[in-house]
Amino acid sequence: MRTLRFVFLCGLVFAGPTAPAADPLPSWHDTAPKKAILGFVAQVTRDGSPGFVPPAERIAVFDNDGTLWCEQPMYVQLRFALDRVKVLAPQHPEWKTKQPFKKLLATPKEQTVAVTEHELLEIVMATHAGMTTEEFDQIVRDWLATARHPKTGQLYTEMVYQPMLELLAYLRANGFKTFLASGGGIEFMRVFAEKVYGVPPEHVIGSSFKTKYEVRDGKAVIVRLPELHFIDDKAGKPVAIQQHIGRRPVAAFGNSDGDREMLEWTQAGGGARLMMLVHHDDDSREWAYGAESKVGTFSNLLLAEAKRNGWLLISMKADWKRVFPSDP
Amino acid sequence: MRTLRFVFLCGLVFAGPTAPAADPLPSWHDTAPKKAILGFVAQVTRDGSPGFVPPAERIAVFDNDGTLWCEQPMYVQLRFALDRVKVLAPQHPEWKTKQPFKKLLATPKEQTVAVTEHELLEIVMATHAGMTTEEFDQIVRDWLATARHPKTGQLYTEMVYQPMLELLAYLRANGFKTFLASGGGIEFMRVFAEKVYGVPPEHVIGSSFKTKYEVRDGKAVIVRLPELHFIDDKAGKPVAIQQHIGRRPVAAFGNSDGDREMLEWTQAGGGARLMMLVHHDDDSREWAYGAESKVGTFSNLLLAEAKRNGWLLISMKADWKRVFPSDP
Repeated sequence: MRTLRFVFLCGLVFAGPTAPAADPLPSWHDTAPKKAILGFVAQVTRDGSPGFVPPAERIAVFDNDGTLWCEQPMYVQLRFALDRVKVLAPQHPEWKTKQPFKKLLATPKEQTVAVTEHELLEIVMATHAGMTTEEFDQIVRDWLATARHPKTGQLYTEMVYQPMLELLAYLRANGFKTFLASGGGIEFMRVFAEKVYGVPPEHVIGSSFKTKYEVRDGKAVIVRLPELHFIDDKAGKPVAIQQHIGRRPVAAFGNSDGDREMLEWTQAGGGARLMMLVHHDDDSREWAYGAESKVGTFSNLLLAEAKRNGWLLISMKADWKRVFPSDP
Repeated sequence: MRTLRFVFLCGLVFAGPTAPAADPLPSWHDTAPKKAILGFVAQVTRDGSPGFVPPAERIAVFDNDGTLWCEQPMYVQLRFALDRVKVLAPQHPEWKTKQPFKKLLATPKEQTVAVTEHELLEIVMATHAGMTTEEFDQIVRDWLATARHPKTGQLYTEMVYQPMLELLAYLRANGFKTFLASGGGIEFMRVFAEKVYGVPPEHVIGSSFKTKYEVRDGKAVIVRLPELHFIDDKAGKPVAIQQHIGRRPVAAFGNSDGDREMLEWTQAGGGARLMMLVHHDDDSREWAYGAESKVGTFSNLLLAEAKRNGWLLISMKADWKRVFPSDP
C-alpha cells in the first residue's frame, strides 16, 4: 500500500490547479475520457466560467465494485462471507446438515456453488451480524490483510484501478469531496476506503444492516442485527446520496446497471455535470464482461441510455495505460 | 445574519491555535465550561500530547433543539408544521371536520392545543410528505424567511445561542468536523445549518422520512413519502452517528434526556473526550426548565448520570455573557 499512499500525497500536494506542470492522470491515455475529465474540472473550478461550481458543492460519487476495484470472479464481499462460513463452522455444528451452509462447507474454495437469493441472504446474515461494529471492523481488517485474489494472488486492496485512484486524488486536489456510493456494505468498505482510496468513513455510503445501541458490561456498544436496513443499489443510490449528503452530486462514476439512477440523478441537476461508466472490455489485463454477466451487469439498455444522455464510457482496454498499481 | 457570518469568518481565519491572541469564545465567562473547552482543544491538538487526536478523527456532534437554538415555547419544527396546516387547509376541505386538523384550525395561533402522540404524527405526515426534496427545501426556506418567534419577534434563525456559534467555529478552526445530531428533521435543518451554523448538509444527521426516487415528466426527483424512516433521538443517536460518520465522536454537546446515549457513546471511546450539557436556567434572558418540561426534558436521572460521568453542565445564566447574537 506504500505506493498508493505516495500517489495520494502527490495528488494532494502537487496536483492542484495552480501547479499544472505534472500530468495528474498519468495512467490515462489522452483519449476522450481523460479529455472530458480535464475539461470538466477546468470548467467547474474556473471562477467566472458559466460552469463554475463553488467548492462546497463539488460532490463526486463513485460506485465501488467494478468501478474502483475488481469484482471478478465474484464480489469481494461475497468471498469474505464465504470465507467466514468456513471460519465460523466449528461454532455451528448444525451447519453440517443445514443448507446453504452444508453445500458451501462441502465445496473446495476454487469451485463455485449455486445459491438462491434467499440462501445468499442467509449467508450474509450469518456472517455479517451478531457482533459489535468494532468487532466487525476487526474481522474485516484481519481478512483483508491476508485474503488474496484467486487469479493474481494479490491482496484485494491491491486489485484497485490505478487510473481511478488518480482520478479520486485529482478531484480532491481540485476541491471536490469524493464519496463512495456502492451496493457494498458501508461498514465493510469503511475498513479500507480511507487507506486505499483516501475516502474517509463519513464519505462512505453503502448498504447496511440495522444496528442497536446497548450498554454491555458497562460499556457502550453498537450491535449489528441480522436485519437489512438499506440496499444501496439502483433507485436506492439517489435516495441514499440525498439522505447522506443532502446535495446533488456534480459528477458520478459507475460501471453497471446498478448505477443508472445515480447517474440520472446527478445529470438532472443541470449545469456542468460529468457522468462516466467504466467498461470492462479488457480480457487480458482484467476481464471482459457486460450484458451477459451476473456480476456487474452492463445491459444494452444501460448502453442505450448512456448514448442518449451523453454518459461517457471508459474503455479499460483503450483508455487506461495501466489497470492495477502493480502493472508495469 | 451578517453578524453571524462575520463571526464564522473570524473563527476560520484568525482563531487557529497559531494565533491565540484573540479570545475565540468572547461570549463565555471564564468559568469551568470555557476552561474545559479550551483545555480539551489544547490537549487534542498538541502533537505529542497523550490526548492528541489526528485531525481526521476530530469529530464533534451537536444536538440542535435547546443546544444550538431555542426550543421554547415549542420546537421550531412543530411551529412550522402547525403553520403549514393553516396554509394547506384550503386544499383539504375535509380537515374542517377531521381531527386533529379541525381543532388546530379553530384555535388562534397564540393558544396551545392538546394533541396525542398519534395526532402529532398525523400532523407531521400531512405537512412534511408528498412533495419532492427540492420542493420541501423551498417551503422551509420561505417559512424561515418570515416566521417569527412569538416572544422576541425575531426570526427563528436569530434565536440561536451566540456562545455555541463561537464554539462551533472554534472547534472547526482547530481541525474539528462539526456535525448536527438532532431529533429534528434532517432536511429541515439542512435548509439553514450551513448559513447559520457553518455546518454543511453532509454534516447534518437527523430524523427522516422514507423517500423514493422517481422520474417525473422526464425529470429525476426524490419524493418524500408519508412514512417515518428514522427517529434520531435517545438510543437512535449513536446508531445514526455510526451509520452516517462511521467514527466515534470525541466531543458531544446536548441539553436533554434525548442526548444521554450520544454522550455515553462518545465517552466510551476512551482517550480525550468532552461531553457537555446546556442547562436552561436563565428565565430572564431565555427560559428556565428541566425535569418537569415536556420540551427538552432534563431529568434528575440525566443530572445524576452527568455527575457520575463527569459531563459538564453549561449554565446559561452563569457561564454565558450573551445568549443570542442580538443581546448587548
